[in-house]
Amino acid sequence: MRLSQYFMPLLKEDPKEAQIMSHRAMLRAGMIKQEAAGIYSWLPMGLAVLRHIEHIIDEELQRAGCVPLLMPTLQPTDIWKESGRYDALGKEMLRFTDRAGRELLYSPTNEEMIVGIFSSSVKSYKQLPLNLYQIQWKFRDEVRPRFGVMRGREFLMKDAYSFDLTAEDAKREYAKMYDTYHRIFGRMGLVTIAVNADSGAIGGNLSHEFQVIAETGESALFYDATFDDIRSGKVTMSGEEMRGLYAAADEQHSADNCPVPPERLREARGIEVGHVFYLGNKYTQAMGVTVTGPDGAAVVPEMGCYGIGVSRLVGAIIEASHDDAGIIWPEAVAPFDAGIINLRVGDDACDIVAVQLYEGLKKAGLNPLYDDTDKRGGEKFATMDLIGLPWQVTVGPRGAADGKVELKYRRSGEKVELPTAEAVAKIIENYKAKVAA
Amino acid sequence: MRLSQYFMPLLKEDPKEAQIMSHRAMLRAGMIKQEAAGIYSWLPMGLAVLRHIEHIIDEELQRAGCVPLLMPTLQPTDIWKESGRYDALGKEMLRFTDRAGRELLYSPTNEEMIVGIFSSSVKSYKQLPLNLYQIQWKFRDEVRPRFGVMRGREFLMKDAYSFDLTAEDAKREYAKMYDTYHRIFGRMGLVTIAVNADSGAIGGNLSHEFQVIAETGESALFYDATFDDIRSGKVTMSGEEMRGLYAAADEQHSADNCPVPPERLREARGIEVGHVFYLGNKYTQAMGVTVTGPDGAAVVPEMGCYGIGVSRLVGAIIEASHDDAGIIWPEAVAPFDAGIINLRVGDDACDIVAVQLYEGLKKAGLNPLYDDTDKRGGEKFATMDLIGLPWQVTVGPRGAADGKVELKYRRSGEKVELPTAEAVAKIIENYKAKVAA
Repeated sequence: MRLSQYFMPLLKEDPKEAQIMSHRAMLRAGMIKQEAAGIYSWLPMGLAVLRHIEHIIDEELQRAGCVPLLMPTLQPTDIWKESGRYDALGKEMLRFTDRAGRELLYSPTNEEMIVGIFSSSVKSYKQLPLNLYQIQWKFRDEVRPRFGVMRGREFLMKDAYSFDLTAEDAKREYAKMYDTYHRIFGRMGLVTIAVNADSGAIGGNLSHEFQVIAETGESALFYDATFDDIRSGKVTMSGEEMRGLYAAADEQHSADNCPVPPERLREARGIEVGHVFYLGNKYTQAMGVTVTGPDGAAVVPEMGCYGIGVSRLVGAIIEASHDDAGIIWPEAVAPFDAGIINLRVGDDACDIVAVQLYEGLKKAGLNPLYDDTDKRGGEKFATMDLIGLPWQVTVGPRGAADGKVELKYRRSGEKVELPTAEAVAKIIENYKAKVAA
Repeated sequence: MRLSQYFMPLLKEDPKEAQIMSHRAMLRAGMIKQEAAGIYSWLPMGLAVLRHIEHIIDEELQRAGCVPLLMPTLQPTDIWKESGRYDALGKEMLRFTDRAGRELLYSPTNEEMIVGIFSSSVKSYKQLPLNLYQIQWKFRDEVRPRFGVMRGREFLMKDAYSFDLTAEDAKREYAKMYDTYHRIFGRMGLVTIAVNADSGAIGGNLSHEFQVIAETGESALFYDATFDDIRSGKVTMSGEEMRGLYAAADEQHSADNCPVPPERLREARGIEVGHVFYLGNKYTQAMGVTVTGPDGAAVVPEMGCYGIGVSRLVGAIIEASHDDAGIIWPEAVAPFDAGIINLRVGDDACDIVAVQLYEGLKKAGLNPLYDDTDKRGGEKFATMDLIGLPWQVTVGPRGAADGKVELKYRRSGEKVELPTAEAVAKIIENYKAKVAA
């Protein structure tokens, strides 16, 4: 994409309403625009990140056997009366009537509707197991929407629902989703800590929250220091091994019963980006759902549900990965794979080299952003640091005459002068290792 | 995908509420499930088609220089008061108040919001032209929702909005979108007729509706018989040439002024799948938007808007492409590229050949559906015809012993017995020609 043909409306000043880095950076980089309290437009660069996150989730869930569908944003309220949850979410549930006087609500979550979909067609244990998921906009009428997309009212969520014949099967699926979540967040460059958590209005008696550690997090958590060793790359662990490590939300934690010695116990704040629940038969029982078991008897199926805050993740990734100059995107979610800065647009040598870079990266299937505007160099550098693409390639008149460019890796700040073709090769090689793998 | 692990809840009987083929077929094939009047869940196979349609639209619009963003489903009503359209849509606009008593609406269309996004950052003619689009769920509270997804209340729409400095530029963009629409619908296997149309509540004085000819269409239209020659493959024309052909909706048509001789004039019913509008400065003027022109003076930008009924297209394609046995998907939108029918699951030779087919197609990047269930052959054939995948490959014990399968092309019904590898090669070759091209 050529910047001159793109829509990336930067803000020059820090917006007053933004209290945390991710909210500031998303507004300043032109990723979002607020339309009402907690309701945002996703401008092109914000949408690009959102779509990368969706893509990773789709790939990993389908690899784990989940099947995608899409439920509507609006629902009739009857099914919530049937499940007994009509009042459980209180004023957070946005209700209204249509022109015919029928009561509708904007989906805050979809347990009731998915049980309806399931029960209208699944009649036999032979059709199990089944794990159905969607990535769809939801609405919760928060009293105090804040922190940009981190606590919005209209938000994008992945919600998966599993159906199994026995509690044992359901718990096996729960463990599989737990491991899948670590893979999903790992691909986004995040190390998450899964803490034992309270099930709240969703219900069930087994539940883990996936937390990204960040100072601005709303949850307090206690965990084994080994998680920090993983985060800093000192230790590598499988999901199953991580599940053995101690981690708890503050309301579940007690210093007296903690199995971790004080010197290995860490306390931090976290941003919840995912939540898995073993539901048992709470919903299937309430809604009268059964399937025929192997012996012909009716069995009430066991459920699990598994959420990921897709739009919140955009903010959480920024909270976990930035510096004073701006965002530092992990490769797999970056809106563009590299930024090309032409310091003298109109100069033949510079234009030729910049286009060589641009076309070379595109030909390899990468998605570069070419700053072909007539802005000053200082402004172009500041913009590239702000929007945080993994690589910056600078083309100036002196280097261009020798066919050389300056390559900067945003995360380390490391710079090196290279022939054009080598810069392209290095970016492609890194991309293949970190994104296409 | 193995059918045993998929979720494709077929109906055995024709649902009473479905009056037209597409609605019947989508319910019977388990593509959708109604949740409330005009509000549907998209089950896995319906969603797969929807995603293919979105993908084609994304590709062609971005090729034409349009930039994707995403606006929220809910909007504050203030901006509709500013534009003067607060009452224009009447009861079709679903309005309600949030917990704080602020009035919101579910977006039926987004001219007001996009003008706000544009005007908050575009200040100079240098930032033009700009064509921003989204694919997002909308809601219109139809009095009588009907025909399944063809006239739903919650529906998926592509809406693009162009901004230009002059009327001449805006009309050039209009022509480009007109041509792009023919390419988009063409890739979906549709021949559309663009008729001069009324602009309705959207406004402006130049507008074309893109109609797919089908008996069940809600619009009456008159057109040059040459369009039929194009539809039957006798004549090939560019978008520009097609624009020269006569076509009009009935309210625009008059027998006295019609330039087409009676023997070349055709009358038919059509399904509207797209609509392009040249808006002039209707919205920019009403909302006080200007940019600085080349001479430093303030200029009110010119707009166009361009809609495609994404969810409606799923129904329209079925109306245009089916037979008594079921759907006949055009290759580019088919939920799976081929169906593999194993007539004797558990028989070693059959299982081996079926898996060879399945893996061979997957390895080439195709997406096959493998019917590995223990259903009877007759039922499997009927299901494959109903769901309308382009190819059916049948593996039976006699052929499998010789390494042969039966290949059927759904559209023509033509069948041929082939060695497994040749069947795979033929499907891949057709796919490359019709989808990957």
